[in-house]
Amino acid sequence: MSTVDEVSRPSRLAEPGEGITAEELQLAARNHGLPLEALRYDVTPVGLHYLLTHYDIPETDAARHTLTIEGRVDHPLVLDLAELRRRPRVTHRVTMECAGNGRALLEPRPVSQPWLVEAVGTADWTGTPLAPLLREAGLSADAIEVLFTGADHGVERGVEQDYQRSLPVPEALREDVLLAYEMNGAPLLPQHGAPLRLVVPGWYGMTHVKWLHRIELLDREFDGYQNAVAYRVRQHADDPGVPVTRIEPRALVQPPGFPDFMSRTRAVRPGTVPVTGRAWSGHAPLTGVEVTVDGGVTWEPATLDPAVEATDTGLTGAEWAWRRWRYDWAATPGRYTLSARATDASGRTQPVEQPWNRGGFANNLVQRVEVLVLADR
Amino acid sequence: MSTVDEVSRPSRLAEPGEGITAEELQLAARNHGLPLEALRYDVTPVGLHYLLTHYDIPETDAARHTLTIEGRVDHPLVLDLAELRRRPRVTHRVTMECAGNGRALLEPRPVSQPWLVEAVGTADWTGTPLAPLLREAGLSADAIEVLFTGADHGVERGVEQDYQRSLPVPEALREDVLLAYEMNGAPLLPQHGAPLRLVVPGWYGMTHVKWLHRIELLDREFDGYQNAVAYRVRQHADDPGVPVTRIEPRALVQPPGFPDFMSRTRAVRPGTVPVTGRAWSGHAPLTGVEVTVDGGVTWEPATLDPAVEATDTGLTGAEWAWRRWRYDWAATPGRYTLSARATDASGRTQPVEQPWNRGGFANNLVQRVEVLVLADR
Repeated sequence: MSTVDEVSRPSRLAEPGEGITAEELQLAARNHGLPLEALRYDVTPVGLHYLLTHYDIPETDAARHTLTIEGRVDHPLVLDLAELRRRPRVTHRVTMECAGNGRALLEPRPVSQPWLVEAVGTADWTGTPLAPLLREAGLSADAIEVLFTGADHGVERGVEQDYQRSLPVPEALREDVLLAYEMNGAPLLPQHGAPLRLVVPGWYGMTHVKWLHRIELLDREFDGYQNAVAYRVRQHADDPGVPVTRIEPRALVQPPGFPDFMSRTRAVRPGTVPVTGRAWSGHAPLTGVEVTVDGGVTWEPATLDPAVEATDTGLTGAEWAWRRWRYDWAATPGRYTLSARATDASGRTQPVEQPWNRGGFANNLVQRVEVLVLADR
Repeated sequence: MSTVDEVSRPSRLAEPGEGITAEELQLAARNHGLPLEALRYDVTPVGLHYLLTHYDIPETDAARHTLTIEGRVDHPLVLDLAELRRRPRVTHRVTMECAGNGRALLEPRPVSQPWLVEAVGTADWTGTPLAPLLREAGLSADAIEVLFTGADHGVERGVEQDYQRSLPVPEALREDVLLAYEMNGAPLLPQHGAPLRLVVPGWYGMTHVKWLHRIELLDREFDGYQNAVAYRVRQHADDPGVPVTRIEPRALVQPPGFPDFMSRTRAVRPGTVPVTGRAWSGHAPLTGVEVTVDGGVTWEPATLDPAVEATDTGLTGAEWAWRRWRYDWAATPGRYTLSARATDASGRTQPVEQPWNRGGFANNLVQRVEVLVLADR
């Protein structure tokens, strides 16, 4: 035979008690999460931002790279990087999270990239807004979706493909959707989509197409793999499911004290321990963060820092950036489980019981941080 | 009790058939390897270089950071970053590899950071040579080891510690041992040891102490955890073992074609497939790389690029940087297992049967890359 079917197997759930498989480990070794101590930085340093690459990082050449805008438009456009850089330049601070964050903690466990809680990062993305370019190309009256194609190529569940995702036209026309060519003030790195990527603040990571070279306006819903098969919240394999879109609220604790190498359990000396972390939501502004030090029996409010004001920072926007929170913990010797939970103005909050679905998507179960408060100071 | 013993357990081997554990996955999610397609770059882009952090990345402040040189010296020194930057500035291209690379492929599997083959990277490290500073401090006649202390703090197997490693004085006095403050032309990133780290070309990664703030000359062998307990090649738990030092030869294949998302099996179209990769050794110059496409039944020589010449590149040294190799493969439809093996001038080569030891250190078993050559072009 020798067809691409042979390299793919159907999706599956892990058996009860089945350890992480060799295939999941291969993904974990190449993709990486935010080391949780890096929650200390407002903007995640290069190399610590989470990263998920479906296939290989492709080889691209910024000097020859072009972006084509075509399909249901009046005037197709072909733009190179120099032309995009001459257009209005904006910088948005955006918290990006993988839609599969938390997957490896689910039971049963969907077998895929085995994230725990660390598939997140915040960057300053600089580029030019997409909407003016779409207006310049002139959307046909029947255009309803915008399809973005990256240069990354591979197979998934038997389907050979370039990575492609679509957005409904109204989302693509939001003024904060960017064609980004810089991250944290430097040209995009290869692994973050060099030389050009899409940034859709508030949406999960699968939307922010990397190595972007083609935009096509469609008069129909895109039925390709990443929209119609992957990235849907389903309860069982035959469930058509609903699309994964915006980021559910989440708070993470920056683990206090110091870790054991292997268990990552934290050791803390007794006294007042300033516990801090970050929280975000892609649906609505946060309204609060609560903390528990007893594994969820009691919750107390944390102090939430104000949202980042773009006007104070030289940014064009920061509506979808995480916010720091703080909580002073009077720690006495013993073992504790720390968690935080975020709530947003849409009324969404984080569950303490797992919100299971077959792909392990958009799951925002509260994190659990195991801490030993030592007897000695 | 509430002592640090409670957060640590003894080292162990995985049971036969035991999947990767939750603790190993925690390490795999925060530490990361080189995605193998990044073997295409002579110098690994920032963020793709492998990274292993024993504890947390510490918070440091370059403006206040100092390096102390003390112990068995005539004139203790305290230097800040500005003083180090005014000293002679050199740049070495160095391939760095984790001593535990390949561990997760061993049977039985030592339970620790579960690397497959990707714990490697090559960077241009800029700094000032260590030897002149040691000579300026004046080594006492009885100084035999140099102890390096980082700012990272944690627990390992019940021992609370700052990360510390020693080198014998003759190694520390090599002219290519650096105190590095830049990586790839930019100030060190937090995760690579900002603002100052040790670089010992040719040695495994545990030697290159990050977040370096203290150097102490000793009149004895250092008996601390990272030298006397960890990083020793042992056959059983009571074996005193031998220290892990220089990097064993290894070649890696840059996987050809394109991958399946989950299995990472490669699909390639038939025809002449240029297979390429990198090879290195920390013991001696490479003498050759061989390739097999039939799982090790037959081996053929690859073409090895010349070693990087420092004089042509503006580097001060590149003796311990990897070299590219190439092999043209006449690929016909079917399934193949590709491997490459490196040999160096010391006579060391890579085994096709695992060189097992209890810590999984310095293991250079040949990589296996599964490839399907498709029937269609």
